[in-house]
Amino acid sequence: MEIRPNLDPQSGVPIYRQLGDYLQRLIETGDLRSGDRLPPTRELAGQLGLNRTTISAAYELLEAVGLIKGEVGRGSYVCGGPEQRTETLNWSRALTSSVSAPIVNHAGSAASGVINFTSSRPSEKLFPIEEFRECCREVLESRNLKTLMQLGSPGGYEPLRRYLLDRAIQSGIARDSDDILITNGCQQAFDLLRRALVRRGEKVALEEPVYPGLKNLFLEAGAELIGIPAGASGKDKDEGIDLYSVQRAFEAGAKVLVVTPSFQNPTGATMPARHRAEVCRMARSAGVAIIENDIYSELACDSDHSLPRLKQLDQNVILLGSFSKIAFPGIRVGWIIAPRAVIARATELKQLADLHTDHLSQAFLLRFAESGKLARHQAIVIAAAREKLRALDQSCRRYLANCSWTVPGGGMNMWITLPAGLDAVALRGLAQQAGIDYLPGRYFSVSRPLDSGLRLSFAGLDPNEIRKGIEILGALVQNAASAREARDAHPALALV
Amino acid sequence: MEIRPNLDPQSGVPIYRQLGDYLQRLIETGDLRSGDRLPPTRELAGQLGLNRTTISAAYELLEAVGLIKGEVGRGSYVCGGPEQRTETLNWSRALTSSVSAPIVNHAGSAASGVINFTSSRPSEKLFPIEEFRECCREVLESRNLKTLMQLGSPGGYEPLRRYLLDRAIQSGIARDSDDILITNGCQQAFDLLRRALVRRGEKVALEEPVYPGLKNLFLEAGAELIGIPAGASGKDKDEGIDLYSVQRAFEAGAKVLVVTPSFQNPTGATMPARHRAEVCRMARSAGVAIIENDIYSELACDSDHSLPRLKQLDQNVILLGSFSKIAFPGIRVGWIIAPRAVIARATELKQLADLHTDHLSQAFLLRFAESGKLARHQAIVIAAAREKLRALDQSCRRYLANCSWTVPGGGMNMWITLPAGLDAVALRGLAQQAGIDYLPGRYFSVSRPLDSGLRLSFAGLDPNEIRKGIEILGALVQNAASAREARDAHPALALV
Repeated sequence: MEIRPNLDPQSGVPIYRQLGDYLQRLIETGDLRSGDRLPPTRELAGQLGLNRTTISAAYELLEAVGLIKGEVGRGSYVCGGPEQRTETLNWSRALTSSVSAPIVNHAGSAASGVINFTSSRPSEKLFPIEEFRECCREVLESRNLKTLMQLGSPGGYEPLRRYLLDRAIQSGIARDSDDILITNGCQQAFDLLRRALVRRGEKVALEEPVYPGLKNLFLEAGAELIGIPAGASGKDKDEGIDLYSVQRAFEAGAKVLVVTPSFQNPTGATMPARHRAEVCRMARSAGVAIIENDIYSELACDSDHSLPRLKQLDQNVILLGSFSKIAFPGIRVGWIIAPRAVIARATELKQLADLHTDHLSQAFLLRFAESGKLARHQAIVIAAAREKLRALDQSCRRYLANCSWTVPGGGMNMWITLPAGLDAVALRGLAQQAGIDYLPGRYFSVSRPLDSGLRLSFAGLDPNEIRKGIEILGALVQNAASAREARDAHPALALV
Repeated sequence: MEIRPNLDPQSGVPIYRQLGDYLQRLIETGDLRSGDRLPPTRELAGQLGLNRTTISAAYELLEAVGLIKGEVGRGSYVCGGPEQRTETLNWSRALTSSVSAPIVNHAGSAASGVINFTSSRPSEKLFPIEEFRECCREVLESRNLKTLMQLGSPGGYEPLRRYLLDRAIQSGIARDSDDILITNGCQQAFDLLRRALVRRGEKVALEEPVYPGLKNLFLEAGAELIGIPAGASGKDKDEGIDLYSVQRAFEAGAKVLVVTPSFQNPTGATMPARHRAEVCRMARSAGVAIIENDIYSELACDSDHSLPRLKQLDQNVILLGSFSKIAFPGIRVGWIIAPRAVIARATELKQLADLHTDHLSQAFLLRFAESGKLARHQAIVIAAAREKLRALDQSCRRYLANCSWTVPGGGMNMWITLPAGLDAVALRGLAQQAGIDYLPGRYFSVSRPLDSGLRLSFAGLDPNEIRKGIEILGALVQNAASAREARDAHPALALV
């Protein structure tokens, strides 16, 4: 075995260290084996053109970690080897097991050319790159930059906290008894509130269908989930949440109720005012904490959409907001507005979770909001969304006559229920081949199968893509339904 | 009660909504009480110069949430009131209780003028503002910005992942069997690994004294902690970890061992090579997972400091790195390098925790590292740190002759043990009055009291501040020790 290390005096790593690492790799790869003798230091020094003490230092390093052994008068021998070093821990036993179904990774999951209805995220075509860049530049050029680069407070960047809380108080959403915590988007808000409110084995009531990131979070924490039917399964039925199921969940001892009253994910449904008041009344009387996920309400296209937040109806409500849906999800900033006691505990947990939310992103988004650019961006997004909703409405009427659906008044998602007997999981493979993709209802189930449901996330698509996509879906559904009818009309003879 | 709302047609909020909110506030504040009659819609419309349908819409809103009640022919009456609406949940019962001691909030905790030894963070005086600004500008101007603003992958920004993992593989720290996850600083890395590896009631071995953010995280998760004496309590004793205690902890069933082999927080101690190899050997044979907190090793001032990482000695080791100590802690980016199975589970948990780490910060720091600016910054920080360590060494020799201490070879912290009988908590009040602040040892204890220890965090201070601070501390210790000797020489008579 020839020893020919590639030593780089410019690398900053001391030469003896580079040599030691090189020899260690030879041992680990099995090129040097247990029992092999290393060249004497003098010999190797001459061969490599190095000082003899450098070679000795490298050998000492290997000896210290038990890879070689020096014997007086006999030189150094390899005593470790790959056989003992590749031994791995039994990770499948060491790691906690995943209790949740695999989560779909939305980012770039669809093949190119496919009309992708799978991701509840804004369209990057509408991102106001130049305006946002300008806000970032202003922050970077401010004298404040040094402070932003330094460690901050767990509660968040103070000017952003003040801005968001003042605005919420002025619009009647928050009260003086409330406080705020800045989080890494609303997903972290849920994670912190889960730790603040839910002990292992306790019951949590969630709307069903529900966003899997929410369900899995509570499942991982060992909570027992109760699904509350929500959404709109047809023109004739009230949108919103099933009040009787809420009552039942509270009687069964649910400790927390999580709701998305406006443009719920995945159904797109909005709770009417009557349900909002009633849910608050029931929770108050049962002593149940409500978490109100309010990340979509500012994406209302309908000018009529001025329903009160639950937080306005009851000060106990814990309200979650985020810039992810109204601005840019890659920049992770959300918040919790809640009574002081809740924020105090959540802030303590935030410090344990990651000290505090990234400073620059908080400052960038604050500038974007304060400068009025966020409001202008929102107006553009909403105008575009109106076109998308119109395309959805027209196409669903035209192509999905045998499905049931309700086009929402805003948000990013809508729910389709296929004709009886069709399965959205089975249909998905055909859909992908035909050039569209969606998420089957089963991803969103808490306890019911929801096999005939599917979610269409439309915010990232153009009206033309939406029309084309629904047309493709409509044809698939038509074919599948006809095939099924044909099968039903000519049943196979029973084997007797 | 006169109704005089401040209505703003420019605000974007519909007028009926503004009026409804105004009336709701009157009811909540008690200005309108249960039973009060609201003016008829026609009358109020005339009074406010509004359309009657606007008034009706506002009343309907209040009726929907149960605050007023309309009776045919009799008009609308208030039926809710502050008495029922200010009722709050019993939060002290609803919230999970904090099992950890309150954490000191480092940010700006010391009064101005006080020499603040409390915070293990870099000096902002050394921040290379202009160089960092330039990197940020380059990222903001790149065509990539749109992608950075969009939702990303839970594992992190791909170019940063590749950069960090490749570098670790090239320097022999990582292997091809390893993978990487980007986190919000190393605190989140601990939080995710805690969820990936530790179930409630399981045993975790930590160095003692230890950083409280680490201890509290495992306590909150219901782990049982075992403290492994670590550090350097005097010139005569080996630095590092107590191997016998490690062996005992493994025999007692510890599942995970967390160590900071280089410049441990709070002791500043570094494990010798012999300990590193031995700890790896013991963990391998006991099947214990090692988490190696490697956030300080690149702050080595001693050119001799080229000890192997534990990760180099054993592929099972889970290595944590971070930009927070070597660059800027306000920008929250750290990472985990570990065998694929560990990263797969941690990534799943990362997605539940907050989807992914902020994109812009990842891109900014990647640019800062790739451009060579990080390496230049590190060289400056290390040159400055040498001066700080020299000041520490000189001042400790001069003023702290009756204490024991070891000046570290790098990092941000050192540990002082006061003369027998002195209490660092009691001394702290006097220290603050005298113009310095530090953290008493008790904050860092796992199971031992550590009353005579204290941590000095020096990285944020100038050599002159360090000298002045140690001089003040020395005088305080001297006085306290003399007072104690005087007391011991003249004991109070026992009461008989």
